[in-house]
Amino acid sequence: MSNKLYFTPGPSGLYPTVPFHIQNALNEDVCAISHRSKKYEAIHENTVQNLKELLNIPDNFHLFFTGSATEVWDRVIENCVEQHSYHCVNGSFSKRFYETAKELNKNATKIEVEFGKGFNADDLNAPIETELICLTHNETSAGVSMPVSEINKVKDKYPNALIVVDAVSSMPYPNFDYSKIDSVLFSVQKGFGMPAGLGVWIVNERCIEKSKLLQTKGISIGTYHNLPSLLSKGINNQTPETPNVLGIYVLGKVAGDMLSIGIDNIRKDTETKAKLLYEFIQNSTNFEIFVNEPAHRSQTVIVANTVIPSPQINKILEPHNMAIGTGYAKYKEQQVRIANFPAFSIDDVEKLIEKLKL
Amino acid sequence: MSNKLYFTPGPSGLYPTVPFHIQNALNEDVCAISHRSKKYEAIHENTVQNLKELLNIPDNFHLFFTGSATEVWDRVIENCVEQHSYHCVNGSFSKRFYETAKELNKNATKIEVEFGKGFNADDLNAPIETELICLTHNETSAGVSMPVSEINKVKDKYPNALIVVDAVSSMPYPNFDYSKIDSVLFSVQKGFGMPAGLGVWIVNERCIEKSKLLQTKGISIGTYHNLPSLLSKGINNQTPETPNVLGIYVLGKVAGDMLSIGIDNIRKDTETKAKLLYEFIQNSTNFEIFVNEPAHRSQTVIVANTVIPSPQINKILEPHNMAIGTGYAKYKEQQVRIANFPAFSIDDVEKLIEKLKL
Repeated sequence: MSNKLYFTPGPSGLYPTVPFHIQNALNEDVCAISHRSKKYEAIHENTVQNLKELLNIPDNFHLFFTGSATEVWDRVIENCVEQHSYHCVNGSFSKRFYETAKELNKNATKIEVEFGKGFNADDLNAPIETELICLTHNETSAGVSMPVSEINKVKDKYPNALIVVDAVSSMPYPNFDYSKIDSVLFSVQKGFGMPAGLGVWIVNERCIEKSKLLQTKGISIGTYHNLPSLLSKGINNQTPETPNVLGIYVLGKVAGDMLSIGIDNIRKDTETKAKLLYEFIQNSTNFEIFVNEPAHRSQTVIVANTVIPSPQINKILEPHNMAIGTGYAKYKEQQVRIANFPAFSIDDVEKLIEKLKL
Repeated sequence: MSNKLYFTPGPSGLYPTVPFHIQNALNEDVCAISHRSKKYEAIHENTVQNLKELLNIPDNFHLFFTGSATEVWDRVIENCVEQHSYHCVNGSFSKRFYETAKELNKNATKIEVEFGKGFNADDLNAPIETELICLTHNETSAGVSMPVSEINKVKDKYPNALIVVDAVSSMPYPNFDYSKIDSVLFSVQKGFGMPAGLGVWIVNERCIEKSKLLQTKGISIGTYHNLPSLLSKGINNQTPETPNVLGIYVLGKVAGDMLSIGIDNIRKDTETKAKLLYEFIQNSTNFEIFVNEPAHRSQTVIVANTVIPSPQINKILEPHNMAIGTGYAKYKEQQVRIANFPAFSIDDVEKLIEKLKL
């Protein structure tokens, strides 16, 4: 593997142990075994158990695998919404979640704020008939987070709605209170530092019951990846389709590595590195922190306005074997996005900061 | 990598060059780069071009990537059927394709024959209103193929319907006439000998037009993986979501390896190995060819009835570092399924036959 550090917000640099786990998977014929075999079931179970332990997910939640987190947007709307979903939109990804619901012919409503702004529970104005509230813990395009303490208040405000949290570019950092949410989704090529091509969908029984209710009403909830189908295979540590077995294996191993380090240490390191980055940006004449409200600044995707166009910064970083993310879409040149995922050590971040002192 | 030969019909033994390509992908940071970068676009383009050349796919066809072939069943029904699909069912997988259409609330009809029997074009009795005819080139559960010459006659019989062919467990073996079909789907963990987690969906303009027509009628055709969305990104060698970049990279390399060997040689070798296997089975007192009609016998998944229960055969093969597939579902004990994919040489198959002389 090259030694280049990809501080890009997804795909991102691989978690250091990933190549080792891939090699072991090849040695152990993980890619050749049947997905209906006991050997596969043991791999699947290990991954689910390690993730549940790492993320402190209660027993009454199920954990399913999909092709991507984008797929989960689609599936959660199909399975948990008859008519009314409600979305907090503050960037490109939360907007796509909203648009997904519209494309599925749901009556989706939203509250939308300016790019760079965030949400507190008080801001939400969901219609009374809302079935699913879609929150984005970390809007990857803008580097804005909704604090977990605010997410926790949403359930008290809307006890009848299901609450799903998109944690694509923050997991495993957020310490969610699973008694306050019903579903979480994330992908593996960000915080878990893995090859892309695998999404993780966490749901509780309320989500399953909702999907079954829709099904009895004759509403299509999809096919192989609807919740009853995922559950019927998942309880046996299997999947409806032939899944990304290599990805599921490696995810279990990476989660195991993270368990050895301890999730508290990973969270503390994340905050230490974020503090280093934000302090550097605050004191730099070339950069400026983009998100004004400190409580809404992401700990995992740090976004800054830049005087020097971001592609030029990457040209400067190139000989030092580093890369950072450019701004999203129309902000490409004028912003940088720096991934602060567990794959990077405090030392890595200090090296980056040194080279960003342009 | 272990030297065990997995003659299992999916997942199956890896194509010999796969570990090498995975290592190169890691060396080249393929898993860390952005899926919106020029470097990714070059990988994507190489895979599409190599597959199009290998499979002789005309320019007016598009090639898209999904999470699995199972996903494509779902997507092709959503995008190409307003009401009426028609299915040729002769085993578990063609049946699941049919059930997928029912679950999506379509008016799906079928012709169903006994397990082990196949279809000729004359057998089809699709209703006049049929929009999509779903054929399975190779029914993996039963080892039954529909000859390409018969598939080619279906278009003449039903010129107004779209024709989709499930070639999950036969690609790259079948030499399809793309003027006679509108769509093909397959997955990579079978004939391409790759890690699972990637499906390939080939469509022509008629399929795209149909999906756009449904969309204008206000019918949901799905979201990120509907045909207009796949096309809008595909024309720039990108995907709507962050895809399985490693899988797409490796698939392009394997297709390149197969191009070097020559598809004619791969097809000839497949037939040579199938002939060896069927002749051995025919002359064996322990095994019996399952599919009576020679024209319907699969060249890529050879199924035989067995006197000795299949799990016991695998115990005998184990010390020789080989495994074969058991029968499907209720045929588990009484049948064997032997994958005859390009990953296995004539020599490999001869070794297997030697050990099957129990």
